[in-house]
Amino acid sequence: RYGQAEVENQIGAATGLAYTQAGGDTLSIEVSLSKGTGKLTLTGKLGDVMKESAQAALSYVRSRTEELNIDEDFYEKLDIHIHVPEGATPKDGPSAGITMATALVSALTNRPVKKEVGMTGEITLRGRVLPIGGLKEKSLSAHRAGLTTILIPEENDKDLEDIPESVREGLTFIKVNHLDQVLDHALLKE
Amino acid sequence: RYGQAEVENQIGAATGLAYTQAGGDTLSIEVSLSKGTGKLTLTGKLGDVMKESAQAALSYVRSRTEELNIDEDFYEKLDIHIHVPEGATPKDGPSAGITMATALVSALTNRPVKKEVGMTGEITLRGRVLPIGGLKEKSLSAHRAGLTTILIPEENDKDLEDIPESVREGLTFIKVNHLDQVLDHALLKE
Amino acid sequence: RYGQAEVENQIGAATGLAYTQAGGDTLSIEVSLSKGTGKLTLTGKLGDVMKESAQAALSYVRSRTEELNIDEDFYEKLDIHIHVPEGATPKDGPSAGITMATALVSALTNRPVKKEVGMTGEITLRGRVLPIGGLKEKSLSAHRAGLTTILIPEENDKDLEDIPESVREGLTFIKVNHLDQVLDHALLKE
Amino acid sequence: RYGQAEVENQIGAATGLAYTQAGGDTLSIEVSLSKGTGKLTLTGKLGDVMKESAQAALSYVRSRTEELNIDEDFYEKLDIHIHVPEGATPKDGPSAGITMATALVSALTNRPVKKEVGMTGEITLRGRVLPIGGLKEKSLSAHRAGLTTILIPEENDKDLEDIPESVREGLTFIKVNHLDQVLDHALLKE
Amino acid sequence: RYGQAEVENQIGAATGLAYTQAGGDTLSIEVSLSKGTGKLTLTGKLGDVMKESAQAALSYVRSRTEELNIDEDFYEKLDIHIHVPEGATPKDGPSAGITMATALVSALTNRPVKKEVGMTGEITLRGRVLPIGGLKEKSLSAHRAGLTTILIPEENDKDLEDIPESVREGLTFIKVNHLDQVLDHALLKE
Amino acid sequence: RYGQAEVENQIGAATGLAYTQAGGDTLSIEVSLSKGTGKLTLTGKLGDVMKESAQAALSYVRSRTEELNIDEDFYEKLDIHIHVPEGATPKDGPSAGITMATALVSALTNRPVKKEVGMTGEITLRGRVLPIGGLKEKSLSAHRAGLTTILIPEENDKDLEDIPESVREGLTFIKVNHLDQVLDHALLKE
Ligand SMILES: [Ca+2]
Ligand SMILES: [Ca+2]
Ligand SMILES: [Ca+2]
Ligand SMILES: [Ca+2]
Ligand SMILES: [Ca+2]
Ligand SMILES: [Ca+2]
Ligand SMILES: [Ca+2]
Ligand SMILES: [Ca+2]
Ligand SMILES: [Ca+2]
Ligand SMILES: [Ca+2]
Ligand SMILES: [Ca+2]
Ligand SMILES: [Ca+2]
Repeated sequence: RYGQAEVENQIGAATGLAYTQAGGDTLSIEVSLSKGTGKLTLTGKLGDVMKESAQAALSYVRSRTEELNIDEDFYEKLDIHIHVPEGATPKDGPSAGITMATALVSALTNRPVKKEVGMTGEITLRGRVLPIGGLKEKSLSAHRAGLTTILIPEENDKDLEDIPESVREGLTFIKVNHLDQVLDHALLKE
Repeated sequence: RYGQAEVENQIGAATGLAYTQAGGDTLSIEVSLSKGTGKLTLTGKLGDVMKESAQAALSYVRSRTEELNIDEDFYEKLDIHIHVPEGATPKDGPSAGITMATALVSALTNRPVKKEVGMTGEITLRGRVLPIGGLKEKSLSAHRAGLTTILIPEENDKDLEDIPESVREGLTFIKVNHLDQVLDHALLKE
Repeated sequence: RYGQAEVENQIGAATGLAYTQAGGDTLSIEVSLSKGTGKLTLTGKLGDVMKESAQAALSYVRSRTEELNIDEDFYEKLDIHIHVPEGATPKDGPSAGITMATALVSALTNRPVKKEVGMTGEITLRGRVLPIGGLKEKSLSAHRAGLTTILIPEENDKDLEDIPESVREGLTFIKVNHLDQVLDHALLKE
Repeated sequence: RYGQAEVENQIGAATGLAYTQAGGDTLSIEVSLSKGTGKLTLTGKLGDVMKESAQAALSYVRSRTEELNIDEDFYEKLDIHIHVPEGATPKDGPSAGITMATALVSALTNRPVKKEVGMTGEITLRGRVLPIGGLKEKSLSAHRAGLTTILIPEENDKDLEDIPESVREGLTFIKVNHLDQVLDHALLKE
Repeated sequence: RYGQAEVENQIGAATGLAYTQAGGDTLSIEVSLSKGTGKLTLTGKLGDVMKESAQAALSYVRSRTEELNIDEDFYEKLDIHIHVPEGATPKDGPSAGITMATALVSALTNRPVKKEVGMTGEITLRGRVLPIGGLKEKSLSAHRAGLTTILIPEENDKDLEDIPESVREGLTFIKVNHLDQVLDHALLKE
Repeated sequence: RYGQAEVENQIGAATGLAYTQAGGDTLSIEVSLSKGTGKLTLTGKLGDVMKESAQAALSYVRSRTEELNIDEDFYEKLDIHIHVPEGATPKDGPSAGITMATALVSALTNRPVKKEVGMTGEITLRGRVLPIGGLKEKSLSAHRAGLTTILIPEENDKDLEDIPESVREGLTFIKVNHLDQVLDHALLKE
């Protein structure tokens, strides 16, 4: 079952790109907030690296509440659940890091994620965007899903030449090296 | 031992459909609430994917208390136990997600679940209903158990043609893509 | 070492029936309550299914405090230890569920368990009694231990015919489908 | 390294008897209490059954504070450490249960344990003493260590005949079926 | 992907040197602080030894708050996340200890880490710097990354002779035996 | 890398003796105290027996605060980290027990440990010192490291004859059977 772009802009959900044995696929990252005490729940048959990636995304957001216009006490008042649907499919790797951060910021600020945007990139605690693998396959799946813009790590620039002409023409590739740029391109102004 | 439809409408219990190596079977999902502090207990020899499915169902309910007419502080005041009887039989997979959510909402709102309704579908944090496998076998077991209505994911529409005529005539199939629809069809108005 | 019926009616201890590779045996289920904060301890080399069974028994009791005449806050004030003696013998399966619930209710209400009663049956969160295996072997061990009454799940009715005449004559079989019936037959009126 | 009887009566330490592949040996069970919050620590390379045995001993004591003249709130005010020295030697089995309970009661009441007494027996939550294995080997090690009295489970009566005459003459065997008897024989009156 | 020296002095990030099967590489150690309650999170696919190393670094800093000009209550007010990017690459060993301590002190004091400095060395609870392996490979990677100064354990003095002339000329090696020296050389005065 | 005696008397660090496959070695045991809530952290790639040994040492100290002149509430106010440097080397066994207790008492009382003293011996909850293995190899390593006094368990007396004359002459062996003696010989009077 191949993913499709969202029909409407979503709050608390962003579209990532996965590189799997069967090629590429889009990946929905969902964030749910509930009144709570700072408990983090990670589900969707995620491997350890992907779970650590979610923790890095959360720590980045927690350490940047002021700049992101988020209540600095949110972590004491909310429980956070990050889920990646199709719960029977194992998922792993660090490349959903920026997608997780984007979905989190969207949920915490109520700014919708643009439905036509997909993204891939590892996130660091400083918000840096590190390169990922499988850009070609990920691009094909983004194109097939109907996305029109994908955010990619600057260091993956060299891999763009490997993407078929037809796909490259249907997609706008935006190179980013920091999460600030990701949020600028992915979130609506509210 | 094959399941049978409930004899009376139940509060806090809903009927799911399982796809097992031996074919299909109905699955009772029970929810018990006790005065507590938000502890979640999951039992019935559930695999990891099914446990994560229960967590997703709970997070959905927690994030939608207002729309569902549930006390927004319920999670701080109650312990929740979700159990799937026949405790020696291993169970797994995401397809009981909407059944778990339905049993939870029933227990929290005291609205009974209609005894003639079965259901199958993965749930996401946004309440979306994702497609499942084994619809044919599940339908046979629902029919055998005496259910008359089953709720299925919209994306499983294409699998209806594989169900034998005799079974299809004895069952009403209702296609859903969001938990709101599931609750509308499965719960009595109180 | 084969079990024997209790010499006196006990508070906080009930007699179950186990189906083992060596045939059947009686099983003493002990419950100890201490001033505490709701911690549950399960010991006696119990397998996962048997532990989950104890959790189901406890959740049933917690959700029915009013009907059972138990202080609704007991879980916040007491620690509960459920132990199955002969600590070196591995034990598993869901069929001690109703015995665990009976011992718990006995301990919490101070109503003694009748010393001549044994019982076997899976419990669900709604207090339903589900069928079990090995009724024949369990009956032989109950008879050998000197029990005179055993409570069995209604759905095991069909297995009574397999029990030898001599044993069937020495035992009164009472069929139950809900824990209310179990407690009626197993507990003294105080 | 074979154990020796204590040189002085000890508070918070009792002598058990172990049945090992190399025959029998005495076993020192030490209990240390510190100002705390009810944390239980079990060390000495203990197997799961022996750890559960310690938990049973503790629960028995906790549920009998009044009869044992122990502050009913002790569990909220103290941390308890039970250690079995010779920390590199693996130990397991339920037969140190009554020794653990005796050392605990000694530590909590400041009544010394008689230095010439050894003991062996499984404990249940009701304080019952269940039979154990290896009585012959255990008796030999008790004798070698210089103990003069050993407390054994009543049900092990039948195994006394297997103990060599010379050992039987040097030891007083006291048969017990409840921890009350154990404490009567093992603890000094203070 | 080989690491590069930082482009700007960083607060809360320091550059370590790793010795891997593929030779040497630089390693970025990131520390993120958030309002919290003293929870420590360690990510980046770290092995047990590297995690223990981070704990040692943290304990050193916690026990030296006065000398380091850090609020002595920081641990009760902050959650600390230490992450090592390139989350899919397994990392282990004690040699990042002083780098972790440096990044921590930088984050807690807001003193930037000099961008041209790399470092390697095990840390002890007393702040001592213990020798490490692979100095040759680590030096090559430091040189390739554009670092100009590397801090090494005094006891590794004897390994300097194995480093190629060309690399040795491009790097200043500073020998240290205590973390005080590391911080003197690695942190700006603010 | 062979250990060397400390250059100065240390507070919170004591020298143990390890018996390894490569012979003997000295072992530094470091204790770090920080404002906290009684959390115990054990690092240095320690095996289970060595970790339990540390717990026994701590419990002994906690239960003897009065005699040791330590604030009886220290455990509620401090976090304790015990680390054994050379974090990549696996370590195990109970023989560092008295060294851990000595380092702990030193840290809690600010009494320095004499730099020329090494020690080896299992500790029990009552402060008893039990015999250890490898005394010959341990003595050789103590001698090589420059230690002049080593504390050994009384029961190891019989192993002294196996130590080469040259080593025996360079070392003072002090036999101990209780931690009180260890502390008398190892700690300065302050
Ligand atoms: Ca897919
Ligand atoms: Ca290329
Ligand atoms: Ca079934
Ligand atoms: Ca089809
Ligand atoms: Ca038995
Ligand atoms: Ca021994
Ligand atoms: Ca015999
Ligand atoms: Ca790299
Ligand atoms: Ca060299
Ligand atoms: Ca300085
Ligand atoms: Ca060494
Ligand atoms: Ca000898």
